[in-house]
Amino acid sequence: MDKHDVVVVNQPLLPRRFALLRLKNHRDTARAIQTMIVRGAGTIGASAGYGLAQACFEAMRQPKWKSFNSYIRKAYLKLLNTRPTAADLKHALDRVLDQIQEADNEEMAFAVAVAEAERIADEYAERGQRIAEAGLPLIRNGSRILTHCNAGWLALVDWGSAPAPIYLANRKGRKVFVWVDETRPRNQGASLTSWEFLQERVPHKIITDNAGGFYMQRGEVDLCIVGADRIAANGDVANKIGTYQKAVLAHENGIPFYVAAPSSTIDLTCRNGDAIPIEERDEAEVHYVTAGSRRVRISPERADAANPAFDVTPARYITGIITEKGIAKPAEVRKLL
Amino acid sequence: MDKHDVVVVNQPLLPRRFALLRLKNHRDTARAIQTMIVRGAGTIGASAGYGLAQACFEAMRQPKWKSFNSYIRKAYLKLLNTRPTAADLKHALDRVLDQIQEADNEEMAFAVAVAEAERIADEYAERGQRIAEAGLPLIRNGSRILTHCNAGWLALVDWGSAPAPIYLANRKGRKVFVWVDETRPRNQGASLTSWEFLQERVPHKIITDNAGGFYMQRGEVDLCIVGADRIAANGDVANKIGTYQKAVLAHENGIPFYVAAPSSTIDLTCRNGDAIPIEERDEAEVHYVTAGSRRVRISPERADAANPAFDVTPARYITGIITEKGIAKPAEVRKLL
Repeated sequence: MDKHDVVVVNQPLLPRRFALLRLKNHRDTARAIQTMIVRGAGTIGASAGYGLAQACFEAMRQPKWKSFNSYIRKAYLKLLNTRPTAADLKHALDRVLDQIQEADNEEMAFAVAVAEAERIADEYAERGQRIAEAGLPLIRNGSRILTHCNAGWLALVDWGSAPAPIYLANRKGRKVFVWVDETRPRNQGASLTSWEFLQERVPHKIITDNAGGFYMQRGEVDLCIVGADRIAANGDVANKIGTYQKAVLAHENGIPFYVAAPSSTIDLTCRNGDAIPIEERDEAEVHYVTAGSRRVRISPERADAANPAFDVTPARYITGIITEKGIAKPAEVRKLL
Repeated sequence: MDKHDVVVVNQPLLPRRFALLRLKNHRDTARAIQTMIVRGAGTIGASAGYGLAQACFEAMRQPKWKSFNSYIRKAYLKLLNTRPTAADLKHALDRVLDQIQEADNEEMAFAVAVAEAERIADEYAERGQRIAEAGLPLIRNGSRILTHCNAGWLALVDWGSAPAPIYLANRKGRKVFVWVDETRPRNQGASLTSWEFLQERVPHKIITDNAGGFYMQRGEVDLCIVGADRIAANGDVANKIGTYQKAVLAHENGIPFYVAAPSSTIDLTCRNGDAIPIEERDEAEVHYVTAGSRRVRISPERADAANPAFDVTPARYITGIITEKGIAKPAEVRKLL
C-alpha cells in the first residue's frame, strides 16, 4: 500500500488482460468491492481492511473540527454494506476497527490499521496453503473434480480455498482433471478459474452450469470442491448461486461434496443458513453477458430478470468442510475455528 | 412452401429482430437445422419434412442417368444426421419418405412429399392446442412455474408444448408467473421463451440456470414444465442440457415436474434413456456468448470446453408426461401414443 492507494487486480479484465488498478481512497475501494472489480471471499476481506486504513488517512486530513471517529464509523459502514453475504468482509473490518480504536492517536491509528490489513492479507495466503495440505488427501491420482465459481488465487490471495488442494496435488504430480462450471451471471469459472488453471497447468474443461449433473450421472465426477462466502454455526454454507444445485446433484449421485474456506468465513452469529442475508444484484448482470469492456444483451429489452448472487447449501448435502485447521463434518464446524 | 423454398423464422436473430429466412434447397435446410437457425423438436421435424420434399424437386431436375432414389436416400441421411438426439426429426423424415416411396412417379412423389410435410406442420399446431388443454388443469390461479429452454411457438409451430398450457391458462385469465431459465449455452430461455412470453403477456422473470434451485428451496416454484427431444419407452426423457438438474432439484423439494411433448417425440425403439444418443456440439458455444450478430468470448483463448447439448432425466424424477392424448405417468408413456 503506497501510503494511501490500494492496488488490486482488475478482475473483470481477465482472462483478456492482467492489469492492476489503484484505488485512491476508501470510497474507490468500496466501489471496487461493490462492482466486483475486487471479488472473492478473502480478497474482499483484505481489500476492505485496507479500505478502512485508507479511511484513517483521510480522516486525519479533514478539518480539525470534524470527528475522526465518526468518519471512520461511516467508512466502516460504507465498506460493510458493499456485499451483504460475505462473512470475511465483516471479519476483516472488525479486526482493523479494533486496532484503530485501541490506538493512542490518529497517526498511530493509521499505522496499526495498515499493519492489521497487511496481517489479514498475509493470513489468507498462509491459510490457503494450509487448506491445500488439509484437502490434499481427498485428491487421488486420477481424480475428476467439479468446481463452481472462483475461489482461487484471485479470490483468496495466493493459494485460494477450493482449488488449493487441487494446485498442491497437481504440483506433486498427481493426475487431476477439473470440470469448471462457467458460473453465470458473471462467469468467474470460465474467465477466472480457467485462467488460473492455465497458469498452473491444471487440466480442465469449462462447462455450462447446466452440464455438471450430466457428468455426475455418467460417473465422470469423483469429487466436488467449492468455496464459501459464509458458513453458519450448523454447517449450512452460503456460496455463489448454483452451489446448492450442484450439492443436491452430488448427493443424489453419491459424490462427495466439500466446502473449503478460511476459518474467518465461519460466522457463529448465524445459527443456520436462514440467518444469512442473500445479496440480490442488479438484473443487468442477467440481461447482459460481459467480457472485459464488451457486452451483449441476450434478453428482450422489455424483459424482467431476477439475480440472487448466492444460495445456501444445507449442511446435510455437505460431506465435509475444509479450513486451515483441517477437515470436519459440517455439524462440527466449530472445531475448525 | 414456394415451390422449392422453405421459409423459416431466423431464430438466432431473436429477440432483437423477427425475420424470415428462405432456404433454397435441402442442403440449406439441413444446414439451418444443424446450426440451429431452425430449432425446437417440432420445428426441426416440420422443416426436415419440407427439406426432404425439396430433395424430391432437386432429384427431378438432375440429369436423367442419375438415380432419383439414391438422391432422396442421401438427402434423407443428410437431414437425419443434423441433430442426433431429436426424435421428431426421424419421425417426420420417415413419414415423408414413405409417401415418396409409394408415389407412382417423380412429379407425384414431390406433390405427396409436400403434402405430407404440410400435414406434419399442421399436426404440430393442432397437437400443441391439445397439449394446452391436457395440461391446463395443472395450472391453478397463482401458479408459479419454472421452465427450461424453449418449447413454445418457435419450437413447435403455433402453440408449442411446455408453454402451451401456460398460454391457455393465461388467456383464460388465470394468474400465472413463470421463472424462465436462460438456458446456456444458446440462451433459448432468455432470448426466445422470454420473447414469446412478452408477446403473450405472460408475467415472467429470466433467471440464470444456477438460480432455479434457490427459488425451489424458498418455496417460490409450484410446478416445473419442460419440453422433450426424445422420450424412451420406459419414460426416460432427453431434453436440453440442464433439464436433469432441474428435475432432481424439483424432486428434492417436492415440486411436481412435468414433460410436455407431441406423441411423435416418444421413441419406443429406445428401451430407456441409455439408448438415446446425446449430441455433443461445438465447444465454441461455451467459449462465446452469442446474441444476434454479436458475440463475446468469456473464456481464455487456450481453454478447453465440453458441450453436451442434452441430458437424460430418468423417469423416476418425472411426475407426468403430457401429450396431445392426455397425461400419463412416465412408466405408462405407451398409453399416450
